[in-house]
Amino acid sequence: MSPHPFSPSQQDEFFLRRALELARENVERGDGGPFGAVIVQDEHIIAEGWNKVIAARDPTAHAEIEAIRAACQRIQHFHLQGATLYASSEPCPLCLAAAYWARVARIVYANDRNEAAAVGFCDDDLYEEFHLPPESRRIPCQHLKLTHANAPFEAWRTSPRRQDY
Amino acid sequence: MSPHPFSPSQQDEFFLRRALELARENVERGDGGPFGAVIVQDEHIIAEGWNKVIAARDPTAHAEIEAIRAACQRIQHFHLQGATLYASSEPCPLCLAAAYWARVARIVYANDRNEAAAVGFCDDDLYEEFHLPPESRRIPCQHLKLTHANAPFEAWRTSPRRQDY
Repeated sequence: MSPHPFSPSQQDEFFLRRALELARENVERGDGGPFGAVIVQDEHIIAEGWNKVIAARDPTAHAEIEAIRAACQRIQHFHLQGATLYASSEPCPLCLAAAYWARVARIVYANDRNEAAAVGFCDDDLYEEFHLPPESRRIPCQHLKLTHANAPFEAWRTSPRRQDY
Repeated sequence: MSPHPFSPSQQDEFFLRRALELARENVERGDGGPFGAVIVQDEHIIAEGWNKVIAARDPTAHAEIEAIRAACQRIQHFHLQGATLYASSEPCPLCLAAAYWARVARIVYANDRNEAAAVGFCDDDLYEEFHLPPESRRIPCQHLKLTHANAPFEAWRTSPRRQDY
């Protein structure tokens, strides 16, 4: 994991090929789907991840989520300022949202959502669902208004323990 | 956690109030933001979660994610068929996507994205980002085409270990 004296585009290819390698290896390993990801900060890989949905019985254990969580544990912070996320395939909404919450600077991917759909991963359908009004989605989402529902927010607004993330 | 001889709407209120309670308690606990969630299957709470982003230094440790992961560990499966996710606040894209991957049947929430925005949680901005073309987002997303990038997908297509999730 020493610095690479390459051009930016050569570096992108180097790190993205590592994400693809993790994806490929995972098919034999059988931990989950054919996806891999790495997080790079200051030209070094600080964490790697691969899909573990099946082995971990965790529907959120996507490659990018695993890599983001590992990177945050490594630097002991919930933000990955300046980091690049390299993903073997275009992040699904779960992973894209995680990248936003982690405040990565950039995302680079090798296969797009159409290529993923060709082997049965319907991320595009999922993106479409997000455009629909909550009550019209495949999973119905209901806003149930309750009295005093804003109590947690009111407590947060004035909390001395409040820390924005 | 015994069955509740209530009407469906009373049950919804009961479980949603528990999610709000978890959210409220978390402000004192200081694990993270003012959010709570519970997973209900067959009229029983099978898992609870609250936001732990700050304490766990994990940007993905949202209440719904915590609850979904705990529920899947409990039933030892990556799908939560027939389950309802009760969330103190409308799920952000991370949590909504996780609900889809976990195949929950229904989502009920107490505060919507506008109420969350009033205390600084800009989930609505995040939803807007998802509508933009990848290269136009606040986090630039680049599709870097590489030779043999489809090798993981080709391996997956014919793998005897393939298991759809």
